Amino acid sequence: MKKNSTDFLEERLRLNKQVLTEGGLVTKRFFNLDEKAFQPGELSSKHKELLGLVASLVLRCDDCVSYHLVRCSQEEVTTTELIETLEIGLIVGGSIVIPHYRRALDFWLNITNH
Amino acid sequence: MKKNSTDFLEERLRLNKQVLTEGGLVTKRFFNLDEKAFQPGELSSKHKELLGLVASLVLRCDDCVSYHLVRCSQEEVTTTELIETLEIGLIVGGSIVIPHYRRALDFWLNITNH
Amino acid sequence: MKKNSTDFLEERLRLNKQVLTEGGLVTKRFFNLDEKAFQPGELSSKHKELLGLVASLVLRCDDCVSYHLVRCSQEEVTTTELIETLEIGLIVGGSIVIPHYRRALDFWLNITNH
Amino acid sequence: MKKNSTDFLEERLRLNKQVLTEGGLVTKRFFNLDEKAFQPGELSSKHKELLGLVASLVLRCDDCVSYHLVRCSQEEVTTTELIETLEIGLIVGGSIVIPHYRRALDFWLNITNH
Amino acid sequence: MKKNSTDFLEERLRLNKQVLTEGGLVTKRFFNLDEKAFQPGELSSKHKELLGLVASLVLRCDDCVSYHLVRCSQEEVTTTELIETLEIGLIVGGSIVIPHYRRALDFWLNITNH
Amino acid sequence: MKKNSTDFLEERLRLNKQVLTEGGLVTKRFFNLDEKAFQPGELSSKHKELLGLVASLVLRCDDCVSYHLVRCSQEEVTTTELIETLEIGLIVGGSIVIPHYRRALDFWLNITNH
Repeated sequence: MKKNSTDFLEERLRLNKQVLTEGGLVTKRFFNLDEKAFQPGELSSKHKELLGLVASLVLRCDDCVSYHLVRCSQEEVTTTELIETLEIGLIVGGSIVIPHYRRALDFWLNITNH
Repeated sequence: MKKNSTDFLEERLRLNKQVLTEGGLVTKRFFNLDEKAFQPGELSSKHKELLGLVASLVLRCDDCVSYHLVRCSQEEVTTTELIETLEIGLIVGGSIVIPHYRRALDFWLNITNH
Repeated sequence: MKKNSTDFLEERLRLNKQVLTEGGLVTKRFFNLDEKAFQPGELSSKHKELLGLVASLVLRCDDCVSYHLVRCSQEEVTTTELIETLEIGLIVGGSIVIPHYRRALDFWLNITNH
Repeated sequence: MKKNSTDFLEERLRLNKQVLTEGGLVTKRFFNLDEKAFQPGELSSKHKELLGLVASLVLRCDDCVSYHLVRCSQEEVTTTELIETLEIGLIVGGSIVIPHYRRALDFWLNITNH
Repeated sequence: MKKNSTDFLEERLRLNKQVLTEGGLVTKRFFNLDEKAFQPGELSSKHKELLGLVASLVLRCDDCVSYHLVRCSQEEVTTTELIETLEIGLIVGGSIVIPHYRRALDFWLNITNH
Repeated sequence: MKKNSTDFLEERLRLNKQVLTEGGLVTKRFFNLDEKAFQPGELSSKHKELLGLVASLVLRCDDCVSYHLVRCSQEEVTTTELIETLEIGLIVGGSIVIPHYRRALDFWLNITNH
């Protein structure tokens, strides 16, 4: 089940639009706030995306991991930086994280054309 | 992957039957107790289903969320009440809940014929 | 370690002030949004607090549970309504929830002067 | 904060009594079912307690871990068997489990008079 | 979506190879350590696999559950022992575990040719 | 309950020694691996500590958070960098993270002499 970043992002966009149309003010503001938290500050966008990635990995959410992987590739994260981040997630979160690590790496290699 | 409430409930029923056939006394009694907890008391069935929904959402179990959505539609929960409940789940559980919120809303709009 | 609602709320207030002073805009807006999600809509404040309570219980956060218990007592939740809510949390979240159920009930009886 | 198994069990008993007095039928039946699940079947009480222990450890509930440690000592689990179980919990659950491992071992050495 | 143990193990092997090729030293050593933790000690391989199973179940990871089910069938766990283990996971982890219990049992019956 | 970094680290050291004395080879190797994952690579020690911090925060482990805060202060993380990291944890993990955010900030201000 090779996932392609375009397909992934299109489906995500479709469902997000639905959420923003049907959801209330709390939903809309939460989405804005989510974006805001990842804007560059003293920490760069790249490092913030890696923080979002490791948080998503230890909480074991494949969709969130995939999204941050797309963003990481846009921020020109190297494969070594990615692996170092996944390894911190693996140590902190344990072997239960491995299936998500496997899928994350597969998606990463796919979207970065390895 | 549009899910239809009939398909969802039929597959659920098939697997539950298997669990109740093969499982032991603890399983059977747990299933009874689960049903009992959602019967109306001082709180109505509707409000209990919303409690089950938000608990399932923050624990991020799509199957449990889908089941409570079917029950919520039977209890005539409005879309606004549903959104208010999902928004509490979103605030309490954070952005990690969003993929489940997206799928929950999509399933809800589907089963309530929006 | 009997907790008193005044002590609990004062310590919470002191730490919240510190968070709002030192935290950034994302923090401040999140706190506003959190408040907003629990304001009455089609669902009453009381039912929203019960949703917050069950979500906090299954996620097993004593501080969050205590806060929602104080709010539930202000919204005149009855002990039976409370128990029905805790029981849904118990069924959904399992025996791992029991220590939090025990502490929640002890705090509730304390703040409602049983 | 050396915990002693007698103190731990007495406080637990006091709060459980309160839960069983104030709680509803769902609570009472859940407690019965919890006991029933740990009664010897094809798996011995000892092995069931180790299952309860590792489940409590990866879910990171100190009270549940302490309770199963008391039960493990009654079932004459050896320190090596205990360590092997904690190590499976550590690998599955990751470094986030370490603070609970540390407290579990400290409590174990205390209640088994090492 | 009947899963077959051969398909499951082949896909797992393919992704694990990729992880071990692309991953760093921390990844490789973690995988070794994971294997080591399940080697027989004072506790047998069979009992260790049941520990891994219940930990995976309460953490609700289907892939991890499937893997331990394959290993349990190799260690000649009986269906009754399996059910007793799943029931402990159900009691500890609550109804949120049920969808995983359902899929676990379906996979078990499939790989053991019931 | 103001915690002081010296007290915190001494108690941690005492319990870690006990774990390393009583624990098996899996434990010792896991501790080594944990250390190894945080050594500088393409990512600096500072950024790895921030990754460890946000992972600990969303998994809601106060002890792990405190440890990474001590390490962050040694790596000369600024208060703004810290807040930006905590805010990502807050958005990803939701309001259930707030009590840990509050305690983290209080500990941070304490150990950095604000």
